[in-house]
Amino acid sequence: VTVNRDKANQQALERMTSANPVLVDVQRAVDVVPGMKPNLVLTSGAPLEWPQYHGAQRLAVIYGAMYEGLADNVEEADEKLHSGSIQIGMTHDYGCVGSVAGIYTASMPVFVVHDRTSGRRAFCNFYEGDSPRRLNYGSYGDDVIERLRFIDEVVAPTIGKAVRRSDGIDLRPIIRRAIHMGDELHSRNSAATLLFTRALFPFLLDVAKLNEREVRSTLEFLEGSQYSFLRLSMAASKATADATHGVDGSSVLTGMTISCREFAIRVSGLGEREWFRGPLPDFEGKLLDGVSEEDVAWMGGESHITETVGLGGFVQAAAFPLQAYQGGSPEVMIERNLSMYEITVGEHPEFRIPYFRYRGAPVGIDLFKVLETGITPVIDGGLAKRDGGQAGAGILRASIECFEAAAQAYRERYEGA
Amino acid sequence: VTVNRDKANQQALERMTSANPVLVDVQRAVDVVPGMKPNLVLTSGAPLEWPQYHGAQRLAVIYGAMYEGLADNVEEADEKLHSGSIQIGMTHDYGCVGSVAGIYTASMPVFVVHDRTSGRRAFCNFYEGDSPRRLNYGSYGDDVIERLRFIDEVVAPTIGKAVRRSDGIDLRPIIRRAIHMGDELHSRNSAATLLFTRALFPFLLDVAKLNEREVRSTLEFLEGSQYSFLRLSMAASKATADATHGVDGSSVLTGMTISCREFAIRVSGLGEREWFRGPLPDFEGKLLDGVSEEDVAWMGGESHITETVGLGGFVQAAAFPLQAYQGGSPEVMIERNLSMYEITVGEHPEFRIPYFRYRGAPVGIDLFKVLETGITPVIDGGLAKRDGGQAGAGILRASIECFEAAAQAYRERYEGA
Repeated sequence: VTVNRDKANQQALERMTSANPVLVDVQRAVDVVPGMKPNLVLTSGAPLEWPQYHGAQRLAVIYGAMYEGLADNVEEADEKLHSGSIQIGMTHDYGCVGSVAGIYTASMPVFVVHDRTSGRRAFCNFYEGDSPRRLNYGSYGDDVIERLRFIDEVVAPTIGKAVRRSDGIDLRPIIRRAIHMGDELHSRNSAATLLFTRALFPFLLDVAKLNEREVRSTLEFLEGSQYSFLRLSMAASKATADATHGVDGSSVLTGMTISCREFAIRVSGLGEREWFRGPLPDFEGKLLDGVSEEDVAWMGGESHITETVGLGGFVQAAAFPLQAYQGGSPEVMIERNLSMYEITVGEHPEFRIPYFRYRGAPVGIDLFKVLETGITPVIDGGLAKRDGGQAGAGILRASIECFEAAAQAYRERYEGA
Repeated sequence: VTVNRDKANQQALERMTSANPVLVDVQRAVDVVPGMKPNLVLTSGAPLEWPQYHGAQRLAVIYGAMYEGLADNVEEADEKLHSGSIQIGMTHDYGCVGSVAGIYTASMPVFVVHDRTSGRRAFCNFYEGDSPRRLNYGSYGDDVIERLRFIDEVVAPTIGKAVRRSDGIDLRPIIRRAIHMGDELHSRNSAATLLFTRALFPFLLDVAKLNEREVRSTLEFLEGSQYSFLRLSMAASKATADATHGVDGSSVLTGMTISCREFAIRVSGLGEREWFRGPLPDFEGKLLDGVSEEDVAWMGGESHITETVGLGGFVQAAAFPLQAYQGGSPEVMIERNLSMYEITVGEHPEFRIPYFRYRGAPVGIDLFKVLETGITPVIDGGLAKRDGGQAGAGILRASIECFEAAAQAYRERYEGA
């Protein structure tokens, strides 16, 4: 098959930058996620067999199964996961995208995001709050369960009621404005969470007529959890990436994912479920008090779906306040952000970086540009502790090997390209 | 009188940086502003006799009198202002502070801001909305009246009801956070207006039980008028500047004001009503379509009370998005902001600039440092058209002469200082 790669990549860019994701509903995963089943647990990362999962990601899957009532204890869950009576799936295969371990179970509420341009849907579950102990960081216990139940019973239904009274909450303008307010929509979402909350107000006024206490609790949660919008940024980015997938001949990335074992990427012109794997990323970060570098471990992560579509590290120079969370300096943030123009196929027409004189964000990572320059994507991200819980936050650099593997597959598919 | 100027300035700095302004009420000016009278119109700038007012500022005062029902037409208002049956006063003498022409009349609603540290109160009236035709820009007509009445009858009472249900809306944390979200609190207030709306919302939920329509209209107004918080930033800054005034021996500025004729400054260690006058400022700006430089005229302005306390141009490097409104480039904004450290006596402990690695804002303008360096304060500001209306926005540079006049007065008062 001979293709014009540049032309294909421009087409991918066009799809990526014209996506128009809108939050249209909040529902239980099993009711809206295609293929979701009561005995299925989704997790981050290119698929592995159950015995290959280890450490906190393995535990997170088990805890998810227990939270869902599929097992009473760790041993029972492990056994059922071995036998297949509890199944495991990769988030991306179900239109979902995971934060850290990225655990989805059937009853969990998810944001339903509809891309008005492509007609596609994507889903993300909810931010659990600001505690370092969260299920998505492999922690479990009464405190974790209590917060998940609060999301399940109060926050999600309230936001759902508000959203269903709206014509949908447009996410693109929130993202556009948040980039002018210090967010990069991955590790900083303070402005976006505020803008989202603000967009809900007119509808919350109605919901409050019957559910005032729930509305007040939800407002308090959103105020205290300024990271909340990440899950909408992720769902919007997933819808955008999926809309970009499947352009014949395109070498633009449509996914980057981490499991406890691997970093992996997906490419627009190659298979939708074909993940090219490489070693885990490097990181440099700012650790929470009492945490050392040896405590940091990989347990999955897919929130860099944001970087995949030109957010996060790709608009870092719009988010200098991020220093407080993940360290670094403005000079380095600028330099890193500028280097992303060298590995992307275009600039976003609407997501613009004020510090770069409103230059559009670098968008559409071309695997061949990565290989030519040796520059791997910059990823903002949370860091997890070996034994569960958040360790800190920092910069991840993707491994080059998965790009090499993808290039090989591309050359095999598109001879002479 | 011999004084230790450095010590006095450190005392002034301490007062300026420890102010804790809180919005406690919204009331009609005549009901809360000490000395406000039904036949009094307040306007921006060091006091002038009525015949000295000219151009759009003269018209704005007249229009204010007409809006208040003190005269039926321009001629009658002019006559009554000549005769003294309508009186004119300087905003600052009444704890108020004016945006552009800065017109206050008795019935106008004002924000009541209480500084919890000093116990002082300051006031500011309301932003009229995003039309370039506004009374504070010397415009008048049915459209202007309609917007003022809407503020008077809907927006101000609704916010007032919400505020009175609260324990006061703390402005310092809003300002602190907004600086991390692209605002400098003078010419950009998008994040602060959002944060303020967010802070009101729990109380608006209650107000909506009896006044749902008014709450919805007020939310729409605040959404469409992202400049709104400026008036709270001004009132907070006025309370802060007044708290800083009266430190014996201090050469720190506690006011900067513009009339149609002069730029003037006030100094902490000199008289509270003693304004040192000089020529009008220079400006460079971005003009609205169809407006030329010759169309720009001075009709007053005191919103640079924000710069007086270390906001606005003094935190410009926190507000790169401002380029879209007033032109300029990030490089120049950074350089200008850095130069303000050369004319100030300290750094704000809480208002910090992310781009400067969270360095505190330069705060407390020392008139002697201005004279020694020849660097005058950088002021962000709106620009007005000769015949009324907004012309654009840009950077104003204070004139050096008023600093010379103030230094002379200082030396006369504090011999040997």
